[in-house]
Amino acid sequence: MVQQEIFGLVQDELSLLENELAAIIQSEDDIMTDMGIHLLRAGGKRLRPALYFLGAKAGKGNLADQMPAAVAIELIHMATLVHDDVLDNASTRRNLITANAKWGDHPSVLTGDYLFAKAFLLLAANNHKAALSILTKEICTICEGEIGQIRDSYRVMQCKEDYFVRIGKKTAGFIAVSCQLGALAAGLSAAEVEGMYQYGYAVGMAFQITDDILDVTASSEKIGKPAGNDLKQGVLTLPVLYALEQSSHSEELKSIITAKDMPEEKVRRCLDIVRGTEAVEYSYQIATDYLETARKSLPDSLPGEVRAALQTIADFIGVRQN
Amino acid sequence: MVQQEIFGLVQDELSLLENELAAIIQSEDDIMTDMGIHLLRAGGKRLRPALYFLGAKAGKGNLADQMPAAVAIELIHMATLVHDDVLDNASTRRNLITANAKWGDHPSVLTGDYLFAKAFLLLAANNHKAALSILTKEICTICEGEIGQIRDSYRVMQCKEDYFVRIGKKTAGFIAVSCQLGALAAGLSAAEVEGMYQYGYAVGMAFQITDDILDVTASSEKIGKPAGNDLKQGVLTLPVLYALEQSSHSEELKSIITAKDMPEEKVRRCLDIVRGTEAVEYSYQIATDYLETARKSLPDSLPGEVRAALQTIADFIGVRQN
Repeated sequence: MVQQEIFGLVQDELSLLENELAAIIQSEDDIMTDMGIHLLRAGGKRLRPALYFLGAKAGKGNLADQMPAAVAIELIHMATLVHDDVLDNASTRRNLITANAKWGDHPSVLTGDYLFAKAFLLLAANNHKAALSILTKEICTICEGEIGQIRDSYRVMQCKEDYFVRIGKKTAGFIAVSCQLGALAAGLSAAEVEGMYQYGYAVGMAFQITDDILDVTASSEKIGKPAGNDLKQGVLTLPVLYALEQSSHSEELKSIITAKDMPEEKVRRCLDIVRGTEAVEYSYQIATDYLETARKSLPDSLPGEVRAALQTIADFIGVRQN
Repeated sequence: MVQQEIFGLVQDELSLLENELAAIIQSEDDIMTDMGIHLLRAGGKRLRPALYFLGAKAGKGNLADQMPAAVAIELIHMATLVHDDVLDNASTRRNLITANAKWGDHPSVLTGDYLFAKAFLLLAANNHKAALSILTKEICTICEGEIGQIRDSYRVMQCKEDYFVRIGKKTAGFIAVSCQLGALAAGLSAAEVEGMYQYGYAVGMAFQITDDILDVTASSEKIGKPAGNDLKQGVLTLPVLYALEQSSHSEELKSIITAKDMPEEKVRRCLDIVRGTEAVEYSYQIATDYLETARKSLPDSLPGEVRAALQTIADFIGVRQN
């Protein structure tokens, strides 16, 4: 299992995290509990808490003090996913039915709110001031990034910079603060905390770019959701923006996208146009550059095993297939 | 203006609150800021912060210390309203177009998340531990209440107790904690804080019951949203539950509701059946009983003017028309 390989160093912490998550999603309301269990089972890589724990491992803090922030990070991530799926009208994620498809939009929006509140309740109960400030600020940023994505959807005249700002807000910032909070828990210096933040930010950028490449290249089974899904929703990712600039079929691509309503064969035609350019290679190169930045940002002072694990995560993101 | 009449004692506080709210909803993102401004303009009575300030006035705290909790309370309220309107697919509230009708569901869900996060960011920045714990817990309860409402919708076999539990979670609890937090800010004794909580809870129950009566009796213009709206969505309120028990047309009412799809003339027929019973009088009596409980719960030790203002609010809720 890949997760074990790359997160081996914090395997115990991640096991305990699962127990804590299972305990905290219990609600007085059965539907809410069922939805929480479903979301937990849908799993995911627990990338953000793993990065947090790895950062924390650079110091001598104890796990009991670290756990609330890790749980809060994953709860917030779950909440953003469940709201995302409602907004995208998604029916599958990681090859599993989404909460909105199973229980409807209403309970899903409410469960997202509930998970947010649980996360902040936990941090408040543990008097975790830094995590509260940093994570609440980060949610504001994520929301701005998501709104930006809606505003920019179908907008073929946007530039790549718009994309980088958007995914920075939508994805990279949250991975960055997971690393930052881990470094703070470890009691690292301000410069080291900043280095960890920059590592996380660059890893996050590469992570989202890879995700966006997969939306163009991978089969639906592999990525656990329909291929071309972003495009269909008008979300213009890096490979698509590249093709809009460079493809000899750029005008056709533009006109399909600006028509907004995209039946399956139009989605396929767009994907073919994108694949007919160097878009994928170009995007991988950008992701690779970010991963190089990530590696260089790691503080020199990190314990060898922590440093090695964080390097491995960067390597893994460069080659991931789902 | 009614608001001035009943909230006169905390008029200055409420004016300052408006400035603080206007400042805090500013976002880097223009759409988010516009939605925030729209939500602020849509206004509302600011009942919850007014109750908070009145509670706080029983002590000698300073306004600067009190403001963050008041702002957070109103932001959370705004967030729940904007999510509510998405869930209800509402197009008007207080005679104004809703955010979801104007900007769409996606930005509205995100703006709700943003407002929640802003509220907790503010409390975290001011190290407001009690407010953080109490308000995050309350959001969990509200979500459970809302999910309960979804689960119970169209369910004609529910009893009135289900309704009271539901509106307790959905509405009364939040008004109760607004009073509780005010009392805590005033440094009142534990028994007095509890009295204030009970006052708020009972006022909140009466407030929701009155709201539910208006859904049956009032014109759409008066309540600023379509009459019979709850019924149409399968939300069975106290007057409807009474009619289901007592009306000679109970079977007809049941069959219309359980058919779920309710065209306008069926809604009107249901409202006629409800109005043909003592449902409205019965519901007013229950609301009146709650308001009596509210008055009795007020701590004897409150300063006279605070006590008088809280009594007036209870009086006002008993006769409100919108």
